[in-house]
Amino acid sequence: GYATLDTHRNLRFGFPEVVLGEPKTVEQLLGIVGTLVERKQTVLVTRLQPDKAEALVARFPKGEYHPVARIFHLKQGKVRAGRVAVVTAGTSDIPVAEEAAITAEAMGAEVRRVYDVGVAGIHRLLRRREEIQECHAAVVVAGMEGALGSALGGLVGIPVVAVPTSVGYGANFKGVSALLAMVNSCASNVATVNIDNGFGGGFYAALISRTKGRR
Amino acid sequence: GYATLDTHRNLRFGFPEVVLGEPKTVEQLLGIVGTLVERKQTVLVTRLQPDKAEALVARFPKGEYHPVARIFHLKQGKVRAGRVAVVTAGTSDIPVAEEAAITAEAMGAEVRRVYDVGVAGIHRLLRRREEIQECHAAVVVAGMEGALGSALGGLVGIPVVAVPTSVGYGANFKGVSALLAMVNSCASNVATVNIDNGFGGGFYAALISRTKGRR
Amino acid sequence: GYATLDTHRNLRFGFPEVVLGEPKTVEQLLGIVGTLVERKQTVLVTRLQPDKAEALVARFPKGEYHPVARIFHLKQGKVRAGRVAVVTAGTSDIPVAEEAAITAEAMGAEVRRVYDVGVAGIHRLLRRREEIQECHAAVVVAGMEGALGSALGGLVGIPVVAVPTSVGYGANFKGVSALLAMVNSCASNVATVNIDNGFGGGFYAALISRTKGRR
Amino acid sequence: GYATLDTHRNLRFGFPEVVLGEPKTVEQLLGIVGTLVERKQTVLVTRLQPDKAEALVARFPKGEYHPVARIFHLKQGKVRAGRVAVVTAGTSDIPVAEEAAITAEAMGAEVRRVYDVGVAGIHRLLRRREEIQECHAAVVVAGMEGALGSALGGLVGIPVVAVPTSVGYGANFKGVSALLAMVNSCASNVATVNIDNGFGGGFYAALISRTKGRR
Amino acid sequence: GYATLDTHRNLRFGFPEVVLGEPKTVEQLLGIVGTLVERKQTVLVTRLQPDKAEALVARFPKGEYHPVARIFHLKQGKVRAGRVAVVTAGTSDIPVAEEAAITAEAMGAEVRRVYDVGVAGIHRLLRRREEIQECHAAVVVAGMEGALGSALGGLVGIPVVAVPTSVGYGANFKGVSALLAMVNSCASNVATVNIDNGFGGGFYAALISRTKGRR
Amino acid sequence: GYATLDTHRNLRFGFPEVVLGEPKTVEQLLGIVGTLVERKQTVLVTRLQPDKAEALVARFPKGEYHPVARIFHLKQGKVRAGRVAVVTAGTSDIPVAEEAAITAEAMGAEVRRVYDVGVAGIHRLLRRREEIQECHAAVVVAGMEGALGSALGGLVGIPVVAVPTSVGYGANFKGVSALLAMVNSCASNVATVNIDNGFGGGFYAALISRTKGRR
Amino acid sequence: GYATLDTHRNLRFGFPEVVLGEPKTVEQLLGIVGTLVERKQTVLVTRLQPDKAEALVARFPKGEYHPVARIFHLKQGKVRAGRVAVVTAGTSDIPVAEEAAITAEAMGAEVRRVYDVGVAGIHRLLRRREEIQECHAAVVVAGMEGALGSALGGLVGIPVVAVPTSVGYGANFKGVSALLAMVNSCASNVATVNIDNGFGGGFYAALISRTKGRR
Amino acid sequence: GYATLDTHRNLRFGFPEVVLGEPKTVEQLLGIVGTLVERKQTVLVTRLQPDKAEALVARFPKGEYHPVARIFHLKQGKVRAGRVAVVTAGTSDIPVAEEAAITAEAMGAEVRRVYDVGVAGIHRLLRRREEIQECHAAVVVAGMEGALGSALGGLVGIPVVAVPTSVGYGANFKGVSALLAMVNSCASNVATVNIDNGFGGGFYAALISRTKGRR
Ligand SMILES: Nc1ncnc2c1ncn2[C@@H]1O[C@H](COP(=O)(O)O)[C@@H](O)[C@H]1O
Ligand SMILES: Nc1ncnc2c1ncn2[C@@H]1O[C@H](COP(=O)(O)O)[C@@H](O)[C@H]1O
Ligand SMILES: Nc1ncnc2c1ncn2[C@@H]1O[C@H](COP(=O)(O)O)[C@@H](O)[C@H]1O
Ligand SMILES: Nc1ncnc2c1ncn2[C@@H]1O[C@H](COP(=O)(O)O)[C@@H](O)[C@H]1O
Ligand SMILES: [Mg+2]
Ligand SMILES: [Mg+2]
Ligand SMILES: [Mg+2]
Ligand SMILES: [Mg+2]
Ligand SMILES: [Mg+2]
Ligand SMILES: [Mg+2]
Ligand SMILES: [Mg+2]
Ligand SMILES: [Mg+2]
Repeated sequence: GYATLDTHRNLRFGFPEVVLGEPKTVEQLLGIVGTLVERKQTVLVTRLQPDKAEALVARFPKGEYHPVARIFHLKQGKVRAGRVAVVTAGTSDIPVAEEAAITAEAMGAEVRRVYDVGVAGIHRLLRRREEIQECHAAVVVAGMEGALGSALGGLVGIPVVAVPTSVGYGANFKGVSALLAMVNSCASNVATVNIDNGFGGGFYAALISRTKGRR
Repeated sequence: GYATLDTHRNLRFGFPEVVLGEPKTVEQLLGIVGTLVERKQTVLVTRLQPDKAEALVARFPKGEYHPVARIFHLKQGKVRAGRVAVVTAGTSDIPVAEEAAITAEAMGAEVRRVYDVGVAGIHRLLRRREEIQECHAAVVVAGMEGALGSALGGLVGIPVVAVPTSVGYGANFKGVSALLAMVNSCASNVATVNIDNGFGGGFYAALISRTKGRR
Repeated sequence: GYATLDTHRNLRFGFPEVVLGEPKTVEQLLGIVGTLVERKQTVLVTRLQPDKAEALVARFPKGEYHPVARIFHLKQGKVRAGRVAVVTAGTSDIPVAEEAAITAEAMGAEVRRVYDVGVAGIHRLLRRREEIQECHAAVVVAGMEGALGSALGGLVGIPVVAVPTSVGYGANFKGVSALLAMVNSCASNVATVNIDNGFGGGFYAALISRTKGRR
Repeated sequence: GYATLDTHRNLRFGFPEVVLGEPKTVEQLLGIVGTLVERKQTVLVTRLQPDKAEALVARFPKGEYHPVARIFHLKQGKVRAGRVAVVTAGTSDIPVAEEAAITAEAMGAEVRRVYDVGVAGIHRLLRRREEIQECHAAVVVAGMEGALGSALGGLVGIPVVAVPTSVGYGANFKGVSALLAMVNSCASNVATVNIDNGFGGGFYAALISRTKGRR
Repeated sequence: GYATLDTHRNLRFGFPEVVLGEPKTVEQLLGIVGTLVERKQTVLVTRLQPDKAEALVARFPKGEYHPVARIFHLKQGKVRAGRVAVVTAGTSDIPVAEEAAITAEAMGAEVRRVYDVGVAGIHRLLRRREEIQECHAAVVVAGMEGALGSALGGLVGIPVVAVPTSVGYGANFKGVSALLAMVNSCASNVATVNIDNGFGGGFYAALISRTKGRR
Repeated sequence: GYATLDTHRNLRFGFPEVVLGEPKTVEQLLGIVGTLVERKQTVLVTRLQPDKAEALVARFPKGEYHPVARIFHLKQGKVRAGRVAVVTAGTSDIPVAEEAAITAEAMGAEVRRVYDVGVAGIHRLLRRREEIQECHAAVVVAGMEGALGSALGGLVGIPVVAVPTSVGYGANFKGVSALLAMVNSCASNVATVNIDNGFGGGFYAALISRTKGRR
Repeated sequence: GYATLDTHRNLRFGFPEVVLGEPKTVEQLLGIVGTLVERKQTVLVTRLQPDKAEALVARFPKGEYHPVARIFHLKQGKVRAGRVAVVTAGTSDIPVAEEAAITAEAMGAEVRRVYDVGVAGIHRLLRRREEIQECHAAVVVAGMEGALGSALGGLVGIPVVAVPTSVGYGANFKGVSALLAMVNSCASNVATVNIDNGFGGGFYAALISRTKGRR
Repeated sequence: GYATLDTHRNLRFGFPEVVLGEPKTVEQLLGIVGTLVERKQTVLVTRLQPDKAEALVARFPKGEYHPVARIFHLKQGKVRAGRVAVVTAGTSDIPVAEEAAITAEAMGAEVRRVYDVGVAGIHRLLRRREEIQECHAAVVVAGMEGALGSALGGLVGIPVVAVPTSVGYGANFKGVSALLAMVNSCASNVATVNIDNGFGGGFYAALISRTKGRR
């Protein structure tokens, strides 16, 4: 009744409106997913709690739930994108990174995961520079002081999408310190999305990696 | 003596280190620009005051100063990029927008300017949607409440780089309200750089528009 | 014993003091509502939890509980107001919107609900412009970046009361980003009330819609 | 060249786009005002510095400059609105109050000024309650702790538009304390615009006072 | 073992160190209270949870627990102070007010309670002005926009100790809006203590009321 | 014309409304001071710039200007108060301290100045403890981290009025760090006024020192 | 799989990477600790919940769990450091202090504990000055207004590492007031780590105390 | 008259009270420096404007003014300390770095300057790692996002004192972003002093480098 689905989005992006699962009831989700399935559109439900995911998978067995990323994905039709690297500072940043990775894969990107390579031991990142440089875009996921955003930006020549995370405590202010670090990055190839917004980071990087198609 | 030039940058981006003109003395600038000219590299000096610009143009007559953008540009060699749209909410946002536009042009992009089309009269933006959609990336430049970021993101299917500006007063907090609006954008194709960072916005969009080259 | 009821309010507004239900015990509520009922005044209890609502409805069966709005309403006598539109950006903003709508209806207004028409798909709002324009005032309810406040203000020529919501995460800061966007609106027909204050938004819009009476 | 005038606004409000004078050059202002004059539209230029005002008055002698309000006004055609009270806490708030008053008058309202009646001596306000209550809307202008917003809201039964000012020092944070006080007002007939936004306050109150016309 | 009791305090104030009950275990509390009792000093334990209070009362039956104020008080010896008024804006502010009132009484003051007289209905406060004026100091307890601090300060000629409370929501920021209002008070007889610090407000007012003794 | 003098204040405090000199013109000041002189009231003008002070002293030679405190004082009639100590952390805090001291003296208090005794060399304060303890109230004036507020509160048994100053830099945020320190003081005999509000601190302490009169 | 252990750290500090226990599962912890044990490295797991600690102690009985500090420690090989004092303002700061103390001891330092000596009763600190002065570095742990940082810095001639704690309420903002106080310290021998970062404070002080080794 | 010199400081640190030159008049400075010279103590005046420096050098020709560091230094007697590295991110950070370097040298340290090696080109830092590692402590000076703090901390095994600078713009908030980055550092050998506090950073590092003396 109340929801107004944005049917234009598939036309603009070649990818339909993504559903934010967290605040919705199982009934609402079953309804929305059902509609999308009928229209032969790919379904992506993010920030989805495990129990609600179960109900979706039961009804739509072609869909898959990624528990770390908290994403339900039901693929329909074909999408194509380029190569995307997803890089994290610590192990605690991995859930947000997986949200980015699964989103990018759902949009057709090939994803390279480079995890736990933060600046407290920068040699870990230096070892993997080549691998990242070969991608069309990188997502960097970091909490605490968010220094990895600039460090990675300073090492590669591709667009870097920075996702600050709320990992940390005290004067971290639930991700604000990392967000500020990334917005103030001294590397010019870094742009930033919201704290813990793995979905946005993955979507944006995949979109960049596709740019070829539109020239 | 003290400065440590980053010679790796040209290798990574096909574009040398850009010089921040504001805090440097004329002597420092003449020195640094001289070095870059000798190395046959393109020179871009941003946030450059008119009086210091005069001295640079006098010494290096092949360079050009863009007063609204406050950029000194001396082209050497060839660079190639795609199409970039630069969109502003009001007329006061134009200096930041020009900084973005001149930067993107220096990197080889073809730039389309769409100015003073803010959401207080949204029909002005709707009229120009097609023009923007044909680009590989858009830079959106807005102060006050920064709503144009989401409004534009919601209209086109390309990556949008949002540059909040410090235009406004009171609870605008010198651009913070626009920055927050852009970071929280409900459109997934929006990523953000620092307040008044026209250079960063133009650089990032031009970089995206080039992605093709690296696939 | 402790409470000091404000009996002047009915004289000023033609509407009695509204009771904030959240922090009060069932006993306190039964007492206060009883007093108002005896005085033949309309009762409105806001932010009322379901379990406490049950007790009120049991004792005062003429009253009605609106679960989404979390409002208990017991009508006595007649009130008259004009037409009010209530507009939301997303589906998560609906509880706050319903608080506004039920409040305005309790004050005698005719309410038009326009839900889930945020700027990520602005065509949804454009389709319904006429409907809103015909009202005497509009309440706009939006979280995240709150861009709908300015977008709506820019489309219609009536006073718009903006209610920022705490919907969002990260740099949304529980509604602060939306609040700032609305307070900084580039549309001059937008004024703002507190985050999640649906009651205030509905009350203010209904009051405007009644202005005729006092000229 | 760059400016995109919003010609729709006169249709929506019966009042053209208001020009923000502060950031514009004399040349830009002469051009914009000239265009509006030709189109037979009322001209209102706000936040206009005295020296630029002189140039406007010299060229357009039918216009008038209000130095305290910093507004240039050139009336063309007829507008009608109701009664608006403008109330201030201290004498330092008067420039913002005058911006509100002149704006409301330009929109056709009859304005009642009630100045320097802050809560440090509340009897001053009590004496003038009747006068304010007879209006269709009130603008309250206050800095420091902004308590007058709630105090006035609690005394009258009409919509109050609160304009926080940057008057104060220290933990006033250039008007933030007053803004917060107004947004958190315990009186339900108070809505708020930006710090020092006298124009917005006067515009909104005048718009309310006109509501009759549209019913 | 770890605690270092401040035995100087009784000498300075004629009142011993007050114990903050919230973070302490029952065992720690029984130990500390036991020591104070032995030394024949009055005991005041603040922010004490009901279950821990029960254990204290069981062991020290001469003590009394005030559940609304959450204070345990065991009187030993005599203390004398003057008259203190405790004034609140709403009913939700009463727990903090009771903390102030019980503390002041424990220090020997005679306390007058004036509750639920906020500025949304200022006539309620005007009715009780005389009663407050006769005291040596007043404690004002208010949340939301905290306007009662200035309103009371403007009505009486005695020192007012303002206690902001965390009552409110949204842009109230858990009491910050009220704190700022009080610190910025335009009335010069207002000084402020921490948010929800009823104990501090009552202690300070009682201390003022005693000043006579020391002249 | 515009100003509404608060004539009640002399009745409440035995001291007339104090004039804030900073934002007023010489003409306004001459007018207001003239009125007060005619009414035989003591005149106190605070935050008064030297050039405007000269004009006042020329016209009213019985008045005196205190350049460090930036106060103009013209005594008429008699006032009586107790003993007040004014204590500063550093030498840069002295202007604010003098504003407090002169205000308290104007209200009839005997003032003891204890300057430059901050916690970086706490022995300086310990040496002067007795002197302060003999007063009825103390004003403590400190910037940077504001630790002197708690340190003094912990040493004496009298009410302490804390005035944070904007002395400092960086994360001092123009006095916010000192303000927070004082509001959070672990000493219960500390209450706080606005940053740099020497006038308020001196007024409040003098008022306390007079409390005797009213018992 | 995902974790990238930083094996360089033992070389740099003579102490291996410390494991942050809070966000890790028991399985992850058993794996990581096992690896470190095999490599004959000392194990330190911080912020470890009691239930997970039990599992570690069961599997590695040579390790010990410190419940107040919430640290698991398994010593292998020898480390040497100097003398470190750990000083707290109140008893509620002790858990953070113990985290510092146990960490410093694990790094080979001799630790002196000086607890509950805050500035509300400064004589308690003065009594123990000598004891602290004899150490090579001190860790000061304080919440609320954090004044002890400067007070201690002002008493001793050794480097002081300040750890603000989140102890307090209201305008304490979970430790921000103490953090600001410490960062703004007027004593030059104070440097600061994150709120509640006992581990960091103890590590840094122990590192200083070892400096000798490297000269 | 007003100043209270802290003569204890030389005893504690073997280094006298350092004079903050900025807010003092030439007369005050000549007086204070004269006193220190008589007492045969080393003089250090920081944040000293060039014109005032001239007067000091004229009167005390044995002293020297360092214009970039803005420090006046007059050496008397002997002091000894270890090796300190001073590292900066950019060239704009050099004035703060020089303040640190000159201070450390005045305290007897041997200083190694490593400037303009920020993370946007991290190879510049890697090249100089050895040089820094051989010191007893390092001062890291960085603005913008302050990532160099963690990057350096992660490369060396010595205590790092981080000095955030106000270099940057927009969401840098005059150094707050760098301060937060440093306080949240994922490297455990980083402690932080105030924004732009080069003096504090140099003092603290030199103090660490001396620790040997006291063991
Ligand atoms: N949901 C609400 N949000 C804000 N204010 C409210 C709300 N509901 C009632 N009020 C106001 O709060 C006051 C009632 O507070 P109380 O005396 O605690 O019941 C009245 O002045 C109402 O106008
Ligand atoms: N003083 C003012 N404060 C806020 N907005 C204003 C003010 N004056 C004009 N405006 C608005 O600002 C816009 C004009 O901006 P511009 O295109 O830069 O002239 C119009 O939409 C006006 O409604
Ligand atoms: N330095 C000051 N700081 C804060 N308030 C002041 C100061 N001087 C005077 N006041 C107060 O400001 C009000 C005078 O404001 P005004 O009517 O603008 O002169 C009076 O209520 C005074 O109590
Ligand atoms: N309590 C703590 N607070 C801050 N940092 C810590 C703490 N415990 C360990 N660390 C650091 O956090 C990192 C370990 O993170 P992880 O890889 O997630 O185990 C190491 O660099 C440690 O130095
Ligand atoms: Mg790790
Ligand atoms: Mg415009
Ligand atoms: Mg939707
Ligand atoms: Mg006045
Ligand atoms: Mg009430
Ligand atoms: Mg001094
Ligand atoms: Mg204690
Ligand atoms: Mg450089």
